[in-house]
Amino acid sequence: MEVLLQAIDLLYPEMVGWRRYLHQHPELSYQERETAAYVAKHLKQWGLEVRTEVGGNGITARLKGNGRGPTVALRADMDALPIQDQKNCEYASKVNGVMHACGHDAHTSTLLGVAKVLSEHRGMLNGDVVFLFQHAEELSPGGAYSMIAEGALDGVDYIYGIHLWTPFPLGAAYCKEGAFMAAADEFEIIVKGKGGHGGLPHETVDSIVIGSQLVGNLQTIVSRGVDPTQPCVVSIGSFHSGTSFNVIAEQAMLIGTVRTFDPDLRMDVKQRMERLVSQTCLMNGADSSFDYKMGYPPVINDTDEAKRFFRAGARVMNVEPSPLIMAGEDFAYYLHQRKGCFMFVGAGNREQGIIHPHHHPKFDIDERAMRDAARLFISMLWDCQNDGCN
Amino acid sequence: MEVLLQAIDLLYPEMVGWRRYLHQHPELSYQERETAAYVAKHLKQWGLEVRTEVGGNGITARLKGNGRGPTVALRADMDALPIQDQKNCEYASKVNGVMHACGHDAHTSTLLGVAKVLSEHRGMLNGDVVFLFQHAEELSPGGAYSMIAEGALDGVDYIYGIHLWTPFPLGAAYCKEGAFMAAADEFEIIVKGKGGHGGLPHETVDSIVIGSQLVGNLQTIVSRGVDPTQPCVVSIGSFHSGTSFNVIAEQAMLIGTVRTFDPDLRMDVKQRMERLVSQTCLMNGADSSFDYKMGYPPVINDTDEAKRFFRAGARVMNVEPSPLIMAGEDFAYYLHQRKGCFMFVGAGNREQGIIHPHHHPKFDIDERAMRDAARLFISMLWDCQNDGCN
Amino acid sequence: MEVLLQAIDLLYPEMVGWRRYLHQHPELSYQERETAAYVAKHLKQWGLEVRTEVGGNGITARLKGNGRGPTVALRADMDALPIQDQKNCEYASKVNGVMHACGHDAHTSTLLGVAKVLSEHRGMLNGDVVFLFQHAEELSPGGAYSMIAEGALDGVDYIYGIHLWTPFPLGAAYCKEGAFMAAADEFEIIVKGKGGHGGLPHETVDSIVIGSQLVGNLQTIVSRGVDPTQPCVVSIGSFHSGTSFNVIAEQAMLIGTVRTFDPDLRMDVKQRMERLVSQTCLMNGADSSFDYKMGYPPVINDTDEAKRFFRAGARVMNVEPSPLIMAGEDFAYYLHQRKGCFMFVGAGNREQGIIHPHHHPKFDIDERAMRDAARLFISMLWDCQNDGCN
Amino acid sequence: MEVLLQAIDLLYPEMVGWRRYLHQHPELSYQERETAAYVAKHLKQWGLEVRTEVGGNGITARLKGNGRGPTVALRADMDALPIQDQKNCEYASKVNGVMHACGHDAHTSTLLGVAKVLSEHRGMLNGDVVFLFQHAEELSPGGAYSMIAEGALDGVDYIYGIHLWTPFPLGAAYCKEGAFMAAADEFEIIVKGKGGHGGLPHETVDSIVIGSQLVGNLQTIVSRGVDPTQPCVVSIGSFHSGTSFNVIAEQAMLIGTVRTFDPDLRMDVKQRMERLVSQTCLMNGADSSFDYKMGYPPVINDTDEAKRFFRAGARVMNVEPSPLIMAGEDFAYYLHQRKGCFMFVGAGNREQGIIHPHHHPKFDIDERAMRDAARLFISMLWDCQNDGCN
Repeated sequence: MEVLLQAIDLLYPEMVGWRRYLHQHPELSYQERETAAYVAKHLKQWGLEVRTEVGGNGITARLKGNGRGPTVALRADMDALPIQDQKNCEYASKVNGVMHACGHDAHTSTLLGVAKVLSEHRGMLNGDVVFLFQHAEELSPGGAYSMIAEGALDGVDYIYGIHLWTPFPLGAAYCKEGAFMAAADEFEIIVKGKGGHGGLPHETVDSIVIGSQLVGNLQTIVSRGVDPTQPCVVSIGSFHSGTSFNVIAEQAMLIGTVRTFDPDLRMDVKQRMERLVSQTCLMNGADSSFDYKMGYPPVINDTDEAKRFFRAGARVMNVEPSPLIMAGEDFAYYLHQRKGCFMFVGAGNREQGIIHPHHHPKFDIDERAMRDAARLFISMLWDCQNDGCN
Repeated sequence: MEVLLQAIDLLYPEMVGWRRYLHQHPELSYQERETAAYVAKHLKQWGLEVRTEVGGNGITARLKGNGRGPTVALRADMDALPIQDQKNCEYASKVNGVMHACGHDAHTSTLLGVAKVLSEHRGMLNGDVVFLFQHAEELSPGGAYSMIAEGALDGVDYIYGIHLWTPFPLGAAYCKEGAFMAAADEFEIIVKGKGGHGGLPHETVDSIVIGSQLVGNLQTIVSRGVDPTQPCVVSIGSFHSGTSFNVIAEQAMLIGTVRTFDPDLRMDVKQRMERLVSQTCLMNGADSSFDYKMGYPPVINDTDEAKRFFRAGARVMNVEPSPLIMAGEDFAYYLHQRKGCFMFVGAGNREQGIIHPHHHPKFDIDERAMRDAARLFISMLWDCQNDGCN
Repeated sequence: MEVLLQAIDLLYPEMVGWRRYLHQHPELSYQERETAAYVAKHLKQWGLEVRTEVGGNGITARLKGNGRGPTVALRADMDALPIQDQKNCEYASKVNGVMHACGHDAHTSTLLGVAKVLSEHRGMLNGDVVFLFQHAEELSPGGAYSMIAEGALDGVDYIYGIHLWTPFPLGAAYCKEGAFMAAADEFEIIVKGKGGHGGLPHETVDSIVIGSQLVGNLQTIVSRGVDPTQPCVVSIGSFHSGTSFNVIAEQAMLIGTVRTFDPDLRMDVKQRMERLVSQTCLMNGADSSFDYKMGYPPVINDTDEAKRFFRAGARVMNVEPSPLIMAGEDFAYYLHQRKGCFMFVGAGNREQGIIHPHHHPKFDIDERAMRDAARLFISMLWDCQNDGCN
Repeated sequence: MEVLLQAIDLLYPEMVGWRRYLHQHPELSYQERETAAYVAKHLKQWGLEVRTEVGGNGITARLKGNGRGPTVALRADMDALPIQDQKNCEYASKVNGVMHACGHDAHTSTLLGVAKVLSEHRGMLNGDVVFLFQHAEELSPGGAYSMIAEGALDGVDYIYGIHLWTPFPLGAAYCKEGAFMAAADEFEIIVKGKGGHGGLPHETVDSIVIGSQLVGNLQTIVSRGVDPTQPCVVSIGSFHSGTSFNVIAEQAMLIGTVRTFDPDLRMDVKQRMERLVSQTCLMNGADSSFDYKMGYPPVINDTDEAKRFFRAGARVMNVEPSPLIMAGEDFAYYLHQRKGCFMFVGAGNREQGIIHPHHHPKFDIDERAMRDAARLFISMLWDCQNDGCN
């Protein structure tokens, strides 16, 4: 395995180059055509069996091993977010209003690096490796589901995924057995008031005032309605209403997300929201609509595979037990089908000012985290194919 | 005068035609080029001395009388609003997102009708008449100010203006001496929070939650901070924040309007708003900006001219004392310079479902109100030029 | 009349003495037994026909004139408020938690002064005078209604009442024809949640959080639901809930007042409140009760009697047109039965720090306002009995 | 040990009798004089060495064993709450407004039962047993601290405590190693507005409206400001303001509690509250005071002693791992000084309608939980003195 790790170290500058290119050319979920072409081009160059347009813009690539050990899938995601890049650096996004603000560019580059190194040492592999470059992780229903439906896990025995994470410091990796990442649901609320002249509020039903009351009322779900020992988040990500300073707006649209780990709580929050939305509007003389889309289920790591992380991961870097992560991941769907685990690799660096949270307009990573992530992938793979299947 | 009134009656179908044409082709404030060209074309046809591009897209047109009486200006406004027309009729707006939702199309058509009739009977006029077709009434700083600056009132002795008004029933006209219409100010608030992941609210400063608190706090200015006998309105017309369901928004922008009649109260409200904006943000860890633009001053009708309304108006229709009107009007600027008054003509008709308030997406008028308004203009003009100057 | 006014001036120090005694011995509404006894004792001393316990603790006293002119009633109220006196002066209230914070002590002393002077000059009176010392003005249903029911207005032709008022400066009197003082209604809201442990909010329904939301929601009635040109107030005077820091309260009780001048608006506000109370509670899983007591109707001054004020009042002091007054007064009931008017006499004095509003814990008056009020009573009476009945 | 457990079973009816007597005669924290006398009387009867007035109304009682094993303290608390008992049963509280709504009556009776049984079998004890009947658990600073200061733990090696708990079903006991129960802090907020007439809000600063805004703002601490994986509660237990429906209240007092497990979060919440309180008041023109009393620290169970629970407890009943408990307990102070653990015994019974949470006006327990708790105490004691010291 050492030779593989050394190869990663040598390849690191190239990984940085890939990442910076992708960072400048981000594509929104379901629109990752250029990114997918970029990935496929490299994989084909290195002699992998590449399938494109798997369940959308997804790509699978198989590298043949000697056939004795299990087939292991490694997954990266490729999509960016509708955020305006505010970084002041040469590799900032060149696309207005679109940005790799969650690090998927680095995930893709990391997995490209692993693919290149393994393709150059395929004789060392005790089994096949399948590389999954997934589209549309950021936007429900997500690419994982459709890639699985189109055979991405066919013949796969184990699957591993990694997320770089700036809240964790460079140099350490994190994992947790069992419930690990949240169910991430999406909702859309429309407040249907009655428009009119800004100076004559009594002839209108003011959708902005009602929407604002609703935002306040929704805070009480977490502050009052949920068992304090149960993690839960209700966030409104967007509030849009009105077009003019002197016209009272007829409608307000609010969209947001709910994060939970427990299925009963998830349904309870949904029902409380329904009640708060409809009645806050009704009591003010407005109508409403409420659309709640169940998003990704919680990521539940296999117990044995989490133990593998603490054993195999420790060979290449510091490993730490992770707290619960409130973010959601459609990696959850892979774990419904196969044994495996999802891991985090620290990408923050306080001294260098790499402190912005994911989805922030100034988000960046310490790029050395890609090397760490590549080493972790290889160590998990090696352990799985050589040291024992769980 | 009877012959003039009869001529208006005959012309009425043509006025309806002009109005419906303009209704289908609305232009936003400061963009009334086609409307102005349409007006100018007619006025020139009828032989008036037309000046275009007066202070913007404004038009003035002079009709010579016999020179014995005073010169009287009559004013209409021409601009539309950024509202999507939701009416289901053949003359609905053909411009996406733009609509004559305040009746300025009818004001323009009414004054065109008056101009045509007077041009055909100019020998009856005891003095000159100046027609002011004003641009940009809906958007501060407004067209009146710049039209005056470019000489629109030169040589004018009196000025009258009329607003059609659906909250008042067809068949009656309304006026009030002294303070009549509100000062209409505009404000823009920016809440500057800290963006981040929707599942990690504690790493962000949530600008939507803060903006919503602010909307609630601003309600208390009127409910608690203002003398209940003093009319005052604080309305937020637009609230925009965020781009994604799962990203907490970094900023929220709120714009709105304040309506007052008393200068001290106006300043007091502005100061309370400044305090509420800055401190609501500060206490939540956000920054803010607050921009308050003093809009049109209150419309103050001359006492004698208001008496003229009750005397001369009664000759052509029912006249009623008006309550205070919370809307603003840049007609206020003309009244700073000349004697005159601003009047309302009922344009609502409950039986026919013409009930929507101004600035509503389904706003319409009973078009017969144009005939009433034309008759009222002529009666005021006649009284002023013949029966005695105040 | 001059001799009467001079007598008032001479009597003024005695009026101050009475007022200070009463100020130190305030009694709550319906409990004015000692105050009534104090008043009755003086009136009997001066030879008036005194009836006590009229409709409660009310007193009527008749002074016979020569029988040619009309019988005129003059009215004062006697009750105090449940407020802790915070003044630092020798005549501060000696009763814990009870205070003459509205000036009824001074009203009583003023009318005692008028009664004494007139009793000493009864030969000058052209008609009878009836003195009404009314109990329970501050608390619905009020003393006026029951005093009338027990004959207080029998044989009375006209009635006048005066309120001292610190927001108006010493030296001027104020009145207004028509609608003058507000309808003053009272409401009681009970939020019925579910109590429980302060650390386990999800097992409770938190009546304090719900009650607080309700207070916010009620602000929107005035800020959004009422025509801005229509004076309206919704105030919550008391919010009580809970007994312990670590127990979530089962119930919250809110009481308050609504002030309006228009009967339709009054009913509309009541209905909006009903809806806000029941639905704010329901949507949070709480029950509620809502009790709305129609209080005193608006005070409507007779037009002719208001004109008398401007004529007769001007003989003894400055008279000014009054704005609308948001306070309520059960004097309204007398005006349902007889011609008359209610007047205000300025009692504020900025230079001397007499600036606190009525019902404030530091409320005080410039006592010279009692002399002014006595002079105004006499002038109105004289005009009515001698110069012409309206 | 079996003989002891059988003795408990036989004694059970007597325990019920004690509990019902105490339930009818509750005493508030720091006022437990009759309760303490009742306890001391029994302990003396049974021949224990009793100390009274230990740190207040606390009692310690020592039972001598054979001196070979360690000295073990068992603790019960004795105080009641300021809640009106709403149960409809013969043993409901006879004291108006005071109630054993947390089960301390049963704790006391359970420990009395254990003391009686052990006193009758003292020859079997391998070491001394110290019984701690603690006063004032419900009210900071709590009785534990002062009892320790006056020597309650002198010569004690281990300490155990039990809380009956209706959210857990009868028949099972619950414990957790490490952080188990919350830090329970107390706060008092005073909003200092400006009183005045209910119809003149603009002349006042309305402390009820401000206090209500504050309640809403405080919800955002948990909903937005705290890591969702960190349990945290901010509850307002009491809101009191105003005395009259038509007087705007000068002050509002809010008291409540904060629950946390993490010291950094605890300080962060305190600082956020300070900022929200002072600025919510300031921006509305009010002053404020904020008093935050650090209450009981978190209960941290010793790891070895928690293991003892799962081993020894399992001999007498079902044992289950407990979730975090948001309630606080001054038992935390004993665990700062000695090894030991705090345990919960299920006392709820859905079939019999015993479902009300602690501190609820209808709170009751399934009394058989006292037998379970006594058996658990004996099992822990026996294990500790005979089977091995941790």
